[in-house]
Amino acid sequence: MPYVNIKVTKEHGGLTKEEKAELIEGATSLLEKTLNKNRASTVVTIEEIDTDNYGLGGEQITERRKRGQ
Amino acid sequence: MPYVNIKVTKEHGGLTKEEKAELIEGATSLLEKTLNKNRASTVVTIEEIDTDNYGLGGEQITERRKRGQ
Amino acid sequence: MPYVNIKVTKEHGGLTKEEKAELIEGATSLLEKTLNKNRASTVVTIEEIDTDNYGLGGEQITERRKRGQ
Amino acid sequence: MPYVNIKVTKEHGGLTKEEKAELIEGATSLLEKTLNKNRASTVVTIEEIDTDNYGLGGEQITERRKRGQ
Amino acid sequence: MPYVNIKVTKEHGGLTKEEKAELIEGATSLLEKTLNKNRASTVVTIEEIDTDNYGLGGEQITERRKRGQ
Amino acid sequence: MPYVNIKVTKEHGGLTKEEKAELIEGATSLLEKTLNKNRASTVVTIEEIDTDNYGLGGEQITERRKRGQ
Repeated sequence: MPYVNIKVTKEHGGLTKEEKAELIEGATSLLEKTLNKNRASTVVTIEEIDTDNYGLGGEQITERRKRGQ
Repeated sequence: MPYVNIKVTKEHGGLTKEEKAELIEGATSLLEKTLNKNRASTVVTIEEIDTDNYGLGGEQITERRKRGQ
Repeated sequence: MPYVNIKVTKEHGGLTKEEKAELIEGATSLLEKTLNKNRASTVVTIEEIDTDNYGLGGEQITERRKRGQ
Repeated sequence: MPYVNIKVTKEHGGLTKEEKAELIEGATSLLEKTLNKNRASTVVTIEEIDTDNYGLGGEQITERRKRGQ
Repeated sequence: MPYVNIKVTKEHGGLTKEEKAELIEGATSLLEKTLNKNRASTVVTIEEIDTDNYGLGGEQITERRKRGQ
Repeated sequence: MPYVNIKVTKEHGGLTKEEKAELIEGATSLLEKTLNKNRASTVVTIEEIDTDNYGLGGEQITERRKRGQ
Protein backbone atom coordinates (compact mmCIF):
# COMPACT_ATOMS: atom_id res chain seq x y z
CA MET A 1 0.00 0.00 0.00
CA PRO A 2 2.65 2.54 -0.99
CA TYR A 3 1.32 6.03 -1.64
CA VAL A 4 2.80 8.18 -4.41
CA ASN A 5 1.79 11.81 -4.86
CA ILE A 6 2.89 13.65 -8.02
CA LYS A 7 2.58 17.44 -8.25
CA VAL A 8 3.11 19.06 -11.65
CA THR A 9 2.19 22.40 -13.15
CA LYS A 10 -1.06 22.67 -15.10
CA GLU A 11 -0.01 23.87 -18.57
CA HIS A 12 -1.47 23.75 -22.08
CA GLY A 13 -4.87 22.79 -20.71
CA GLY A 14 -3.46 20.17 -18.34
CA LEU A 15 -2.25 16.59 -18.76
CA THR A 16 -4.04 14.31 -21.18
CA LYS A 17 -5.82 11.24 -19.86
CA GLU A 18 -3.15 9.07 -21.45
CA GLU A 19 -0.32 10.97 -19.76
CA LYS A 20 -2.02 10.53 -16.39
CA ALA A 21 -2.51 6.83 -17.09
CA GLU A 22 1.18 6.51 -17.98
CA LEU A 23 2.26 8.27 -14.77
CA ILE A 24 0.02 6.04 -12.63
CA GLU A 25 1.17 2.88 -14.36
CA GLY A 26 4.82 3.96 -14.29
CA ALA A 27 4.84 4.90 -10.60
CA THR A 28 3.09 1.65 -9.66
CA SER A 29 5.53 -0.45 -11.69
CA LEU A 30 8.48 1.43 -10.19
CA LEU A 31 7.37 0.45 -6.65
CA GLU A 32 6.73 -3.13 -7.80
CA LYS A 33 10.07 -3.50 -9.59
CA THR A 34 12.19 -1.72 -6.99
CA LEU A 35 10.59 -2.84 -3.73
CA ASN A 36 8.41 -5.75 -4.84
CA LYS A 37 5.36 -3.85 -3.60
CA ASN A 38 1.86 -5.17 -4.25
CA ARG A 39 0.38 -3.35 -7.27
CA ALA A 40 -3.15 -3.95 -6.04
CA SER A 41 -2.77 -1.67 -3.03
CA THR A 42 -0.44 0.99 -4.50
CA VAL A 43 -2.20 4.38 -4.56
CA VAL A 44 -1.07 7.19 -6.87
CA THR A 45 -2.51 10.71 -6.99
CA ILE A 46 -1.64 13.43 -9.48
CA GLU A 47 -2.11 17.09 -8.59
CA GLU A 48 -2.01 19.63 -11.42
CA ILE A 49 -1.21 23.04 -10.00
CA ASP A 50 -1.76 26.37 -11.73
CA THR A 51 1.50 28.05 -12.83
CA ASP A 52 0.61 31.11 -10.74
CA ASN A 53 0.50 28.82 -7.70
CA TYR A 54 3.80 27.07 -8.42
CA GLY A 55 7.10 28.76 -7.66
CA LEU A 56 10.75 28.03 -8.39
CA GLY A 57 13.63 30.36 -7.56
CA GLY A 58 11.19 32.75 -5.84
CA GLU A 59 9.13 33.31 -9.00
CA GLN A 60 5.83 32.02 -10.35
CA ILE A 61 6.28 29.51 -13.16
CA THR A 62 3.99 31.75 -15.23
CA GLU A 63 6.70 34.39 -15.21
CA ARG A 64 9.52 31.96 -15.92
CA ARG A 65 7.64 30.60 -18.92
CA LYS A 66 7.46 34.14 -20.35
CA ARG A 67 11.25 34.01 -20.47
CA GLY A 68 11.19 30.55 -22.02
CA GLN A 69 12.29 28.85 -18.82
CA MET B 1 -3.36 21.62 16.46
CA PRO B 2 -3.41 18.22 14.73
CA TYR B 3 -3.68 18.37 10.97
CA VAL B 4 -5.76 15.82 9.07
CA ASN B 5 -5.75 15.67 5.27
CA ILE B 6 -8.33 13.48 3.51
CA LYS B 7 -7.95 12.67 -0.20
CA VAL B 8 -10.90 11.03 -1.97
CA THR B 9 -11.94 10.66 -5.58
CA LYS B 10 -14.32 13.24 -7.02
CA GLU B 11 -17.31 11.22 -8.24
CA HIS B 12 -20.99 11.90 -8.99
CA GLY B 13 -20.37 15.65 -8.96
CA GLY B 14 -18.28 15.52 -5.77
CA LEU B 15 -19.09 15.31 -2.07
CA THR B 16 -22.13 17.12 -0.73
CA LYS B 17 -21.66 19.90 1.79
CA GLU B 18 -23.16 17.67 4.46
CA GLU B 19 -20.73 14.83 3.72
CA LYS B 20 -17.81 17.24 4.01
CA ALA B 21 -19.18 18.59 7.28
CA GLU B 22 -19.51 15.03 8.60
CA LEU B 23 -15.91 14.19 7.63
CA ILE B 24 -14.57 17.34 9.31
CA GLU B 25 -16.61 16.79 12.46
CA GLY B 26 -15.76 13.08 12.55
CA ALA B 27 -12.02 13.55 12.08
CA THR B 28 -11.93 16.28 14.74
CA SER B 29 -13.87 14.16 17.24
CA LEU B 30 -11.62 11.18 16.52
CA LEU B 31 -8.52 13.22 17.52
CA GLU B 32 -10.33 14.57 20.56
CA LYS B 33 -11.61 11.18 21.74
CA THR B 34 -8.42 9.23 20.98
CA LEU B 35 -5.72 11.72 21.94
CA ASN B 36 -7.65 14.35 23.92
CA LYS B 37 -6.60 16.92 21.32
CA ASN B 38 -8.05 20.44 21.44
CA ARG B 39 -10.88 20.71 18.92
CA ALA B 40 -10.37 24.43 18.54
CA SER B 41 -6.99 24.05 16.85
CA THR B 42 -7.59 20.85 14.88
CA VAL B 43 -7.36 21.53 11.14
CA VAL B 44 -8.95 19.21 8.54
CA THR B 45 -8.70 19.58 4.78
CA ILE B 46 -10.51 17.49 2.18
CA GLU B 47 -9.10 17.12 -1.33
CA GLU B 48 -11.40 15.74 -4.01
CA ILE B 49 -9.32 14.32 -6.84
CA ASP B 50 -10.53 13.55 -10.37
CA THR B 51 -10.78 9.81 -11.07
CA ASP B 52 -8.36 10.23 -14.00
CA ASN B 53 -5.82 11.59 -11.51
CA TYR B 54 -6.28 8.82 -8.95
CA GLY B 55 -4.71 5.41 -9.46
CA LEU B 56 -4.96 2.05 -7.73
CA GLY B 57 -3.28 -1.12 -8.97
CA GLY B 58 -1.61 0.86 -11.78
CA GLU B 59 -4.92 1.99 -13.28
CA GLN B 60 -6.99 5.16 -13.22
CA ILE B 61 -10.08 4.85 -11.04
CA THR B 62 -12.08 5.96 -14.09
CA GLU B 63 -11.16 2.68 -15.78
CA ARG B 64 -11.83 0.58 -12.69
CA ARG B 65 -15.26 2.11 -12.34
CA LYS B 66 -16.09 1.00 -15.90
CA ARG B 67 -15.64 -2.55 -14.64
CA GLY B 68 -17.73 -1.85 -11.56
CA GLN B 69 -14.72 -1.75 -9.24
CA MET C 1 -8.87 3.93 -1.86
CA PRO C 2 -9.23 7.13 0.15
CA TYR C 3 -6.02 8.35 1.69
CA VAL C 4 -5.98 9.96 5.14
CA ASN C 5 -2.86 11.58 6.57
CA ILE C 6 -2.80 12.57 10.24
CA LYS C 7 -0.06 14.85 11.59
CA VAL C 8 0.23 15.25 15.35
CA THR C 9 2.95 16.42 17.69
CA LYS C 10 5.24 13.80 19.21
CA GLU C 11 4.86 14.24 22.98
CA HIS C 12 5.40 12.12 26.10
CA GLY C 13 7.39 9.60 24.08
CA GLY C 14 4.91 9.50 21.21
CA LEU C 15 1.59 7.79 20.63
CA THR C 16 1.03 4.31 22.00
CA LYS C 17 0.42 1.46 19.58
CA GLU C 18 -3.18 1.30 20.76
CA GLU C 19 -3.74 5.01 20.09
CA LYS C 20 -2.38 4.60 16.56
CA ALA C 21 -4.61 1.56 16.01
CA GLU C 22 -7.61 3.57 17.22
CA LEU C 23 -6.81 6.46 14.87
CA ILE C 24 -6.42 4.11 11.89
CA GLU C 25 -9.62 2.22 12.69
CA GLY C 26 -11.53 5.43 13.41
CA ALA C 27 -10.46 7.22 10.22
CA THR C 28 -11.25 4.16 8.11
CA SER C 29 -14.70 3.75 9.68
CA LEU C 30 -15.40 7.47 9.23
CA LEU C 31 -14.81 7.15 5.45
CA GLU C 32 -16.88 3.97 5.33
CA LYS C 33 -19.80 5.40 7.32
CA THR C 34 -19.82 8.84 5.68
CA LEU C 35 -19.01 8.00 2.06
CA ASN C 36 -19.52 4.22 1.94
CA LYS C 37 -15.87 3.85 0.97
CA ASN C 38 -14.28 0.39 0.76
CA ARG C 39 -12.35 -0.30 3.97
CA ALA C 40 -10.03 -2.71 2.19
CA SER C 41 -8.40 0.02 0.11
CA THR C 42 -8.48 2.91 2.60
CA VAL C 43 -4.93 3.99 3.49
CA VAL C 44 -4.14 5.93 6.68
CA THR C 45 -0.73 7.28 7.69
CA ILE C 46 0.15 8.93 10.98
CA GLU C 47 3.08 11.34 11.21
CA GLU C 48 4.35 12.25 14.67
CA ILE C 49 6.26 15.52 14.50
CA ASP C 50 8.67 16.86 17.10
CA THR C 51 7.29 19.84 19.02
CA ASP C 52 10.26 21.95 17.89
CA ASN C 53 9.19 21.26 14.31
CA TYR C 54 5.51 22.09 14.86
CA GLY C 55 4.33 25.67 15.07
CA LEU C 56 1.09 27.42 15.98
CA GLY C 57 0.68 31.18 16.27
CA GLY C 58 4.27 31.69 15.10
CA GLU C 59 5.75 29.69 17.97
CA GLN C 60 7.12 26.19 18.46
CA ILE C 61 4.75 23.94 20.40
CA THR C 62 7.67 23.26 22.75
CA GLU C 63 7.49 26.88 23.88
CA ARG C 64 3.69 26.90 24.16
CA ARG C 65 3.79 23.81 26.33
CA LYS C 66 6.13 25.63 28.75
CA ARG C 67 3.25 28.06 29.31
CA GLY C 68 0.77 25.21 29.70
CA GLN C 69 -0.79 25.81 26.28
CA MET D 1 15.82 22.14 -3.09
CA PRO D 2 13.56 22.80 -0.12
CA TYR D 3 9.89 22.25 -0.77
CA VAL D 4 7.26 24.50 0.79
CA ASN D 5 3.55 23.76 0.51
CA ILE D 6 1.05 26.42 1.58
CA LYS D 7 -2.63 25.54 2.03
CA VAL D 8 -5.11 28.39 2.49
CA THR D 9 -8.84 28.74 2.11
CA LYS D 10 -10.21 29.97 -1.21
CA GLU D 11 -12.22 33.07 -0.34
CA HIS D 12 -13.43 36.18 -2.18
CA GLY D 13 -12.66 34.58 -5.52
CA GLY D 14 -9.26 33.31 -4.43
CA LEU D 15 -5.82 34.88 -4.04
CA THR D 16 -4.71 37.51 -6.52
CA LYS D 17 -1.71 36.80 -8.73
CA GLU D 18 0.26 39.38 -6.75
CA GLU D 19 -0.55 37.73 -3.42
CA LYS D 20 0.62 34.37 -4.78
CA ALA D 21 3.81 35.98 -6.10
CA GLU D 22 4.43 37.54 -2.68
CA LEU D 23 3.93 34.19 -0.90
CA ILE D 24 6.30 32.41 -3.30
CA GLU D 25 8.95 35.11 -3.02
CA GLY D 26 8.55 35.37 0.76
CA ALA D 27 8.79 31.64 1.39
CA THR D 28 11.84 31.34 -0.86
CA SER D 29 13.59 34.26 0.84
CA LEU D 30 12.76 32.82 4.26
CA LEU D 31 14.56 29.55 3.38
CA GLU D 32 17.47 31.53 1.90
CA LYS D 33 17.83 33.88 4.86
CA THR D 34 17.29 31.28 7.58
CA LEU D 35 19.09 28.25 6.17
CA ASN D 36 21.13 29.73 3.31
CA LYS D 37 19.22 27.52 0.90
CA ASN D 38 19.69 27.93 -2.86
CA ARG D 39 16.83 30.01 -4.25
CA ALA D 40 17.18 28.42 -7.66
CA SER D 41 16.03 25.00 -6.48
CA THR D 42 13.46 26.04 -3.84
CA VAL D 43 9.97 24.85 -4.86
CA VAL D 44 6.80 26.45 -3.45
CA THR D 45 3.24 25.33 -4.14
CA ILE D 46 0.08 27.09 -3.02
CA GLU D 47 -3.17 25.15 -2.63
CA GLU D 48 -6.39 27.14 -2.34
CA ILE D 49 -9.04 25.01 -0.69
CA ASP D 50 -12.79 25.64 -0.73
CA THR D 51 -14.15 26.75 2.65
CA ASP D 52 -16.54 23.78 2.64
CA ASN D 53 -13.48 21.52 2.41
CA TYR D 54 -11.53 23.24 5.18
CA GLY D 55 -12.33 22.62 8.82
CA LEU D 56 -11.28 24.12 12.13
CA GLY D 57 -12.75 23.19 15.49
CA GLY D 58 -14.87 20.50 13.83
CA GLU D 59 -16.67 22.98 11.57
CA GLN D 60 -16.42 24.05 7.95
CA ILE D 61 -14.84 27.47 7.55
CA THR D 62 -17.95 28.43 5.55
CA GLU D 63 -19.99 28.12 8.73
CA ARG D 64 -17.46 29.96 10.89
CA ARG D 65 -17.42 32.84 8.41
CA LYS D 66 -21.20 33.17 8.82
CA ARG D 67 -20.51 33.99 12.47
CA GLY D 68 -17.72 36.39 11.52
CA GLN D 69 -14.96 34.02 12.60
CA MET E 1 10.11 21.28 -11.15
CA PRO E 2 7.68 18.43 -10.58
CA TYR E 3 7.51 17.19 -7.03
CA VAL E 4 7.07 13.49 -6.28
CA ASN E 5 6.49 12.22 -2.75
CA ILE E 6 6.68 8.47 -2.08
CA LYS E 7 5.40 7.05 1.21
CA VAL E 8 6.23 3.41 2.01
CA THR E 9 6.28 1.35 5.17
CA LYS E 10 9.57 1.03 7.04
CA GLU E 11 10.24 -2.72 7.18
CA HIS E 12 13.27 -4.97 7.65
CA GLY E 13 15.34 -2.01 8.85
CA GLY E 14 14.18 0.27 6.07
CA LEU E 15 15.06 0.74 2.41
CA THR E 16 18.65 0.33 1.32
CA LYS E 17 20.49 3.29 -0.13
CA GLU E 18 20.40 1.60 -3.53
CA GLU E 19 16.64 1.11 -3.40
CA LYS E 20 16.16 4.79 -2.57
CA ALA E 21 18.49 5.77 -5.41
CA GLU E 22 16.49 3.56 -7.79
CA LEU E 23 13.17 5.11 -6.69
CA ILE E 24 14.54 8.65 -7.13
CA GLU E 25 16.03 7.87 -10.53
CA GLY E 26 12.94 5.98 -11.65
CA ALA E 27 10.46 8.68 -10.60
CA THR E 28 12.57 11.40 -12.25
CA SER E 29 12.86 9.42 -15.50
CA LEU E 30 9.13 8.72 -15.46
CA LEU E 31 8.37 12.48 -15.39
CA GLU E 32 10.98 13.10 -18.07
CA LYS E 33 9.76 10.34 -20.38
CA THR E 34 6.05 10.93 -19.89
CA LEU E 35 5.86 14.71 -19.69
CA ASN E 36 9.27 15.79 -20.96
CA LYS E 37 9.94 17.43 -17.61
CA ASN E 38 13.37 18.86 -16.80
CA ARG E 39 15.32 16.36 -14.70
CA ALA E 40 17.41 19.09 -13.13
CA SER E 41 14.48 20.59 -11.25
CA THR E 42 12.51 17.41 -10.44
CA VAL E 43 12.34 16.88 -6.67
CA VAL E 44 11.63 13.46 -5.13
CA THR E 45 11.21 12.71 -1.44
CA ILE E 46 10.81 9.29 0.14
CA GLU E 47 9.09 8.90 3.50
CA GLU E 48 9.51 5.60 5.33
CA ILE E 49 6.68 5.19 7.82
CA ASP E 50 6.61 2.78 10.75
CA THR E 51 4.18 -0.14 10.23
CA ASP E 52 2.34 0.86 13.43
CA ASN E 53 1.70 4.26 11.81
CA TYR E 54 0.48 2.88 8.49
CA GLY E 55 -3.00 1.49 8.10
CA LEU E 56 -4.87 -0.41 5.40
CA GLY E 57 -8.39 -1.78 5.80
CA GLY E 58 -8.63 -0.22 9.27
CA GLU E 59 -5.64 -2.14 10.61
CA GLN E 60 -1.98 -1.39 11.29
CA ILE E 61 0.34 -3.02 8.75
CA THR E 62 2.15 -4.54 11.74
CA GLU E 63 -0.93 -6.64 12.42
CA ARG E 64 -1.49 -7.56 8.77
CA ARG E 65 2.10 -8.74 8.50
CA LYS E 66 1.50 -11.12 11.41
CA ARG E 67 -1.08 -12.81 9.19
CA GLY E 68 1.32 -12.81 6.26
CA GLN E 69 -0.53 -10.02 4.45
CA MET F 1 -5.91 28.45 9.84
CA PRO F 2 -3.45 28.34 6.93
CA TYR F 3 -1.22 25.30 6.92
CA VAL F 4 2.41 25.53 5.82
CA ASN F 5 4.58 22.44 5.39
CA ILE F 6 8.32 22.87 4.88
CA LYS F 7 10.47 19.95 3.73
CA VAL F 8 14.25 20.34 3.88
CA THR F 9 17.16 17.94 3.86
CA LYS F 10 18.55 16.82 7.21
CA GLU F 11 22.24 17.85 7.11
CA HIS F 12 24.99 18.56 9.66
CA GLY F 13 22.93 16.96 12.39
CA GLY F 14 19.73 18.74 11.41
CA LEU F 15 18.33 22.21 11.95
CA THR F 16 18.96 23.97 15.23
CA LYS F 17 16.03 24.84 17.45
CA GLU F 18 16.57 28.50 16.64
CA GLU F 19 16.47 27.87 12.90
CA LYS F 20 13.19 25.99 13.28
CA ALA F 21 11.78 28.80 15.43
CA GLU F 22 12.80 31.32 12.75
CA LEU F 23 11.14 29.28 9.99
CA ILE F 24 7.91 28.96 11.98
CA GLU F 25 7.83 32.64 12.89
CA GLY F 26 8.78 33.70 9.36
CA ALA F 27 6.16 31.55 7.63
CA THR F 28 3.45 32.70 10.05
CA SER F 29 4.36 36.36 9.56
CA LEU F 30 4.41 35.90 5.78
CA LEU F 31 0.78 34.66 5.82
CA GLU F 32 -0.20 37.46 8.18
CA LYS F 33 1.51 40.21 6.18
CA THR F 34 0.49 38.94 2.74
CA LEU F 35 -3.03 37.67 3.36
CA ASN F 36 -3.87 39.17 6.75
CA LYS F 37 -4.29 35.65 8.12
CA ASN F 38 -4.82 35.08 11.83
CA ARG F 39 -1.50 34.12 13.44
CA ALA F 40 -3.25 32.23 16.22
CA SER F 41 -4.56 29.53 13.91
CA THR F 42 -1.66 29.31 11.43
CA VAL F 43 -0.04 25.85 11.58
CA VAL F 44 3.52 25.24 10.36
CA THR F 45 5.28 21.86 10.23
CA ILE F 46 8.90 21.24 9.32
CA GLU F 47 10.01 17.89 7.95
CA GLU F 48 13.74 17.15 7.89
CA ILE F 49 14.42 14.43 5.35
CA ASP F 50 17.57 12.32 5.11
CA THR F 51 19.76 13.21 2.10
CA ASP F 52 19.49 9.60 0.88
CA ASN F 53 15.71 10.07 0.79
CA TYR F 54 15.79 13.39 -1.06
CA GLY F 55 16.42 13.54 -4.76
CA LEU F 56 17.07 16.29 -7.30
CA GLY F 57 17.91 15.70 -10.95
CA GLY F 58 17.45 11.95 -10.47
CA GLU F 59 20.17 11.72 -7.79
CA GLN F 60 20.24 11.50 -4.03
CA ILE F 61 21.37 14.74 -2.39
CA THR F 62 24.00 12.66 -0.60
CA GLU F 63 25.69 12.08 -3.94
CA ARG F 64 25.34 15.68 -5.10
CA ARG F 65 26.95 16.89 -1.90
CA LYS F 66 29.98 14.70 -2.61
CA ARG F 67 30.47 16.84 -5.72
CA GLY F 68 29.94 20.02 -3.73
CA GLN F 69 26.48 20.63 -5.17
